[in-house]
Amino acid sequence: MSSTTGDVKVDFGDDGLVPAVAQDADTGEVLMLAYADEEALARTRETGRAHYRSRSRDELWEKGATSGHVQEIEEVRVDCDADALLYLVDQTGGACHTGYRSCFHRTVDGETVGERAFDPEDVYE
Amino acid sequence: MSSTTGDVKVDFGDDGLVPAVAQDADTGEVLMLAYADEEALARTRETGRAHYRSRSRDELWEKGATSGHVQEIEEVRVDCDADALLYLVDQTGGACHTGYRSCFHRTVDGETVGERAFDPEDVYE
Repeated sequence: MSSTTGDVKVDFGDDGLVPAVAQDADTGEVLMLAYADEEALARTRETGRAHYRSRSRDELWEKGATSGHVQEIEEVRVDCDADALLYLVDQTGGACHTGYRSCFHRTVDGETVGERAFDPEDVYE
Repeated sequence: MSSTTGDVKVDFGDDGLVPAVAQDADTGEVLMLAYADEEALARTRETGRAHYRSRSRDELWEKGATSGHVQEIEEVRVDCDADALLYLVDQTGGACHTGYRSCFHRTVDGETVGERAFDPEDVYE
C-alpha cells in the first residue's frame, strides 16, 4: 500500500546542504555520495538529471556535464528525518572520476573490489 | 582483479565526522545514512557490528543496542575521496525507528514506497 501526502519538506540544516546518495536503479549498486542544496534538488527534480552542490567549487554541479557520465533520475527518496536524499539513477559510464563504476570501489582495508567502467584519461582533460 | 594496499586513511574532516551509508548486503537496499567518527569506525571494525556517532546525543551509538535491530557488518567500503563510508550489513528487523525496513521509505513527493518491518511501539518504550 502506498500513500502520498505531498512534498516532503527537506531539512537542509545550518549549512544548507544534505548528503545525497546515488544508487544504480537497476543493480542497486551505491555509486557515490555528494551533497545537495535546495537549488540542486530543485534542478534535479525539474530536469530529471542528478544535480549536486560542489563544496570544493561552491557551485551547482550537474553530474556528467563535463564527462558525459550523466545520471538520469528514476526516483528521489528522502529519509525519515528528511535530512538525507537517495537518488535512484540510470548511470551512464561510471560515477567515479577515477574510472570506476562506483566511488565505493575499495574496502577500508585497501582492497579494490569495484569494477572499472572507463579510462579517466579518455574523459577528463 | 583485486589488490590490497593496506588500510585507507579516512578523512574525518574538521568536525571529525564522515557520512556512513548502511546498505543491505543481500538485497542492496539502502537502509539509512548516519555519521561515524574515528571511534565509531574503529568499534565497527573491531566488533563486526555497525557503530555510528550520534550527533544529537553526541555519543558513540551501536545500532540496535536498544532495539535489538543490529547490523552485522559484511564489509566496510570507503569512497574515492576517503570522506564517506559504506557499511554492507546484515540487518536484523528494520533500520528505521519508524518501523520501516529502510529510513528511505518515502519519495520526496511524499509517496510511501518502503516496507514495514516492525511496529515501533513493540520495540521502543
